[in-house]
This record gives sequence, structure tokens and C-alpha cells, in this order.
Amino acid sequence: MSVLPQHVARSALASLGGAAGAVRFASVGDLPLENGGVLPDVVLAYETWGTLNADASNAVLVHHALTGSSHVARGDTDVAGWWDTLVGPGRPLDTDEVFVVSINMVGGCYGSTGPSSLAPDGRPWGSRFPQITLRDAANAEKRLAEALGIDVFSLVMGGSMGGARALEWAVTHPEAVQRCAVLAIGASSTAEQIAWAQPQLLAIRNDPDFADGNYYDGPAPSAGLGIARRIAHITYRSEAELGARFGRKAQAGEDPFSGTNAARGRYAVESYLDHKATSLAARFDANSYIVLSDALMSHDVARGRGGLEQALAGVSAEFLVAAVTSDRLYLPEQSFELAAALPGDVPVHLIDAAIGHDGFLTEMDQLGALLDAHVFGR
Amino acid sequence: MSVLPQHVARSALASLGGAAGAVRFASVGDLPLENGGVLPDVVLAYETWGTLNADASNAVLVHHALTGSSHVARGDTDVAGWWDTLVGPGRPLDTDEVFVVSINMVGGCYGSTGPSSLAPDGRPWGSRFPQITLRDAANAEKRLAEALGIDVFSLVMGGSMGGARALEWAVTHPEAVQRCAVLAIGASSTAEQIAWAQPQLLAIRNDPDFADGNYYDGPAPSAGLGIARRIAHITYRSEAELGARFGRKAQAGEDPFSGTNAARGRYAVESYLDHKATSLAARFDANSYIVLSDALMSHDVARGRGGLEQALAGVSAEFLVAAVTSDRLYLPEQSFELAAALPGDVPVHLIDAAIGHDGFLTEMDQLGALLDAHVFGR
Repeated sequence: MSVLPQHVARSALASLGGAAGAVRFASVGDLPLENGGVLPDVVLAYETWGTLNADASNAVLVHHALTGSSHVARGDTDVAGWWDTLVGPGRPLDTDEVFVVSINMVGGCYGSTGPSSLAPDGRPWGSRFPQITLRDAANAEKRLAEALGIDVFSLVMGGSMGGARALEWAVTHPEAVQRCAVLAIGASSTAEQIAWAQPQLLAIRNDPDFADGNYYDGPAPSAGLGIARRIAHITYRSEAELGARFGRKAQAGEDPFSGTNAARGRYAVESYLDHKATSLAARFDANSYIVLSDALMSHDVARGRGGLEQALAGVSAEFLVAAVTSDRLYLPEQSFELAAALPGDVPVHLIDAAIGHDGFLTEMDQLGALLDAHVFGR
Repeated sequence: MSVLPQHVARSALASLGGAAGAVRFASVGDLPLENGGVLPDVVLAYETWGTLNADASNAVLVHHALTGSSHVARGDTDVAGWWDTLVGPGRPLDTDEVFVVSINMVGGCYGSTGPSSLAPDGRPWGSRFPQITLRDAANAEKRLAEALGIDVFSLVMGGSMGGARALEWAVTHPEAVQRCAVLAIGASSTAEQIAWAQPQLLAIRNDPDFADGNYYDGPAPSAGLGIARRIAHITYRSEAELGARFGRKAQAGEDPFSGTNAARGRYAVESYLDHKATSLAARFDANSYIVLSDALMSHDVARGRGGLEQALAGVSAEFLVAAVTSDRLYLPEQSFELAAALPGDVPVHLIDAAIGHDGFLTEMDQLGALLDAHVFGR
């Protein structure tokens, strides 16, 4: 275990030492990659909440989605997490009972080794960062788990790409996963999901500031990353939600019929997407967006394993599979296909939400109830 | 009537004189615009098929969609049209009976005055081209109709943006439209449709070659336009269609797991989208894409007319409203809302297709049958 130089730690949370919800760093060594090659000297940023019990039987691994971080919940910090009400005393992941771990995925930009990290030659990896798969990530994370003294997780869970990471974990390390909760994602990324990712990555690569990925000495390709985020965000929300919130309204104080084509006032939904774009560009590295999106495009738990049913035949975990009713990116039918291919009789639970895919982040009561009833038997 | 300098006529069809399916040009004068200002010396490119009868009662106006042209059908030319089997002797728009007219929308790049045309100062309009609405286009096209000796169209029709143009025609010039066929579009562009357009236009504007829209002396912003097309094309097709055609297949001879992040082999669906992008960028002007997309975002037949029902109260046309069952961009429910708001009892016909929105271009037999049964009473 080592603490990395500050350039890797983008989060102020790193200054909080061992507190719950504070970022720590672990060196996990050289990582052989599924596609060949080795990523040297990999460091993973992670956070924990609660206490590992004496026989290390109460560990829960929570995986973040594409642009998430290890900061699931605020813990002892002042910074809200992305599943903030899920973790804490008396909460579904009850830190009086369980020890929660979350790890920034390798390739990311929240403290783990990624394209913005320094390569052995002292310059940022940039465009030289290798292609990473979810399987590579699971292998790196397994080393961290072992370093923490965890041989078996009582639960590995996540939504969206976090769900894909959880599923890949349960298949790659079946002996280490007792229960697995896979939310709002199927067994592989589909043509549709690959298709939506492609123009996002091209929008980043075509940004004048992208510089073939070696932009760390200059301005970041924020506009391109913002375009990617807008595309993604629309797929995360439902048509009905956008319609109900914005309709054809003009943004307050602006006129979409202002009379010039070069610049006009915005519709309210455009202002909303602008805000989503600016927010992400301020907190995320464009190269990490490419690396992690590419890893998500590679998501296929059956790859090289003799087909889906055979790939899943070896899992020993009990599964909780759930989908969001209005999800138009990760269709509920893909969750049903996953459940049908898993050993045993695995039902699909539906999170009832009008918002779309992001329901896995917003419907905390339903998610908590699912964990209470089907994982912890409360 | 005048023939424009060759720089305006991008199509070789312009050399064919008065033949069916050959591009001709008409000056329609200075065009006052809905948003204020005047577009001077507007020229419209148009094509015709068949012969206008003595009392000018057999004219049909066919409107193209966002990236279409006036070339609906090949006519006497060798170039296939985008509704090629719809127009001709014995076809649904039977040129032994009807006189078909199609007009490149003002702002476009197929011969009508648009951003690539020369402004009065002798330089291309570029970023100075004014904002155009579908209402402006209908007013310009009405002048051309009158110049052709057509006071009343027996039918005005179109799909997607062409449908919006047809609807706007019937409301703006109710005395001039006997029947109106509105396919695969509703009464206004929704938050969803505006949202999808926004990152497309930003991808063009963020292209290093865009030069604030004044790129006609240099390379075109083809990459940005290609990104826009990819986004649009995904919305034009269904998830099921992409899945059935491509799944997770790699493009032949390429390896998506080639091991580097800067460049890897493509998935088949990526190659497909690349092809769609390259094709459009080779035939379309990026500024026209912006101008026409913006006009489509402005689509709202109720704007300034006291609400939808009141706006439609004055139409005298008989309506044919149709939607594609699998359309995820222009949802069938929006066609039902339009039909319900029209005077009288207007049914919605469903074009049964798995492909998505593009079904209005591919399901020619069903479209022909609808026209036969519900417009021409054959």
C-alpha cells in the first residue's frame, strides 16, 4: 500500500486519511491485460465504510458506473456520494453490519492509474494508455481485495457499468462472490449501446484541443467531452421525462427565435444539456471517458467462455437482477435474458420509474427495499 | 424564372433542362422572415414529374426530409430518387394523372438559396445566413407554386421534416391544400427531438474546420457533420434493427480488441455508422444541416396561433396521418395527438415496420397502399 503523488489524487477526499468515505490508494503491481501487454505499477484508489469483521465475512463491493467514482456515500466527509442514502448505520448497506468497499476503476480519473497518470517515462500516459476490459479491472480489484484481507465478498453490486463490473467479477472470480446484484445492465453491450458510444468518443477525438489524447500540457477537450455527455445523458433519461420537464419551453430570458443562425437563444432542454455537459467536463478526464467507454463497449461476460450459458454455469453467487422499467439504453429485456441464462431460477425485479436508465441512481427507496428483501432478508 | 450560376447547382441533374426529375431554378424574390429581416433574392431549386392539366387541378407537392433533395424519383434521369417507386406511370403518384412538384427547402444545399449561396456582397452567406422556419419555407414555396400556375395542390405530402413542411403548408395556406399527408411526425418538435438535435449541431460547430461557419475557402467540417449524422441515424433506426444486423460482431478483417486505446479495430456497427457519416458528408453542406435542423427544432404549427386546436381549426384539407410502429424519434403517439387535434375524425394509419423512423422511406408498398386507399380512392 502506498499513497500516490498528489497529481493522481484529484479529489480533496484524499486528505482525510482513513476516515469512512476518504480516498486511499493501493499499489497492486503490474497488471497483465486481456488484450496482451502489461500495465505497469497499477495503483487503485478506493474508499471504505464500516469495519471488516474478524473472519472477513462482511465485505460488500460496490462498483461505480461510467463517470462515477469510489465515493459512494459521504461517510465521515462533507461530500455527498452518488448512492448517498444507501450506505450508513441503519441504511440498506448498514455500516454497523457490513464493510463496504468501492474502487475507482483502472483507467478512470478519480485516483486510480489512468491516462492522466504518469507513465514510467514521467509523462502522462495520454494516448499511450492501453485498452482495458472489465475483466482486467476485476483482476486488478481482486488483488486489492486480497490486500485488504478479503477473500470472499458477501455481496458485489453495481448499476449500469457498475452492474457489468459486478457481473464480470462474479464470473471471473466465482469463489470470491457470495451474492451479486446486477442493476440496469445485461450480459453484454449490444449493437445499440456500442452505436451510442461511438459518436461520443468521436466528438472527443474531434475536439480541436484533443491533440490525439496528449493534451495535458494544454487546454482539455472540454467541448468534445460535453458533447459526449449530452448524447449519453439523453440516453439515460426517458422521452417522457424530457417532455414533462421541458417541452418546447425557451430558456428563461432567452429567445430561440432570436433571428440569427450563428447564435440564438436556447430552448430550456438545450440549457439543461449544456449544464450537464459543463458539469461533467469540469470533473472528468476525456481520455478516461474514452478508456472506460471502450471497456464498457467490450462488456461481454461470455467472451472466450463458450457462450453465455456456459460462461455463467460456473458462478456460485446468488443473483439479484433488476431493471428500470423506462430504461431505453439498457432495456429490461436484456436483464431478463441475463436472468434466464443464469443457473437456477433468477427473477428480474423491476424498478418502477419514469425517468429512464438513471432510475438506478434516483430510486433509492426501491433499491434499498430490493436489498433488504432479497439480499439481507430483513 | 432564372437559372443560377453553377456554384449553386450541386447536382448534375441541373444539366437536363426540362426533363422529369431534372433540377430547375426559380427566383421568388426577397423573402420576409418570421423572425424578422428579409432574405434577399431567394432562388428555389425544384423538380417536376408529369404534366399540369388545363385547369391546374392535378398538382401534388412532395416535401423532402432533413437531408433530402427535390429528387423524389428518377423520372427521365439515371439517378434514383429517395421515394423512387412512388412516382411514375401506374405508380401511387401516377404521372399519367398527376403533376408532381418537389422543392429543395430554402436553406438547403441542393440548389435553393442556402448558406453556401453567395450573399449580395459576393461571398457565401456562411454564418450570416438567417434563421429560417418551416413557415418561411412554406411562404417561399407558395410563390413558386403560383409561378408554376398552381393555386391549389390536390395533395401536399411528406415524411419526417417533409411531413412537418406539409402540415405547415396546410395551416399557412389552407386555401391551397385540398389533401395533406403527414407521415412520421407530430404537430411540433418535442423536447426529445430538440435534445437530439443539439449535440449534432454542436459536433459540427466544434469541428476544427468549421471556422465559425465560414469554411467555404477551406476544408469542410466533414468529421463534425459525420458525427451529427451518426447520432441522427441511430435515432432513425430501432434498437432491434441494429441488434439483428450487427449484434456485437467485429467488422470483417478488424479486431476491436487490438490492444491499443488510440486506435483499435471496429465493431461492425461502428463501421456501418462510419459509412453513413462519410456518405452524408460527401453530399451535404454542414451549414445547411444546421439551418435545416434549426428550422425543424422550430417546428410548431401552433406557434402564434392560439394553441394547437385553434391553429388547426382553419385547415380545409383532408388529412392522411400515418406513423411508423417502431419509430423512436417521432413517436406514433405524437401522430395520434396531431390527428386528435385536427378537425373532424382523422384516423392514424400505422406503417408496420421494425426498422424505426426510416420506415417512411423503406416501406414503399405500405405507403403506396395508403395513398391508393385514402387519398386517391383506388
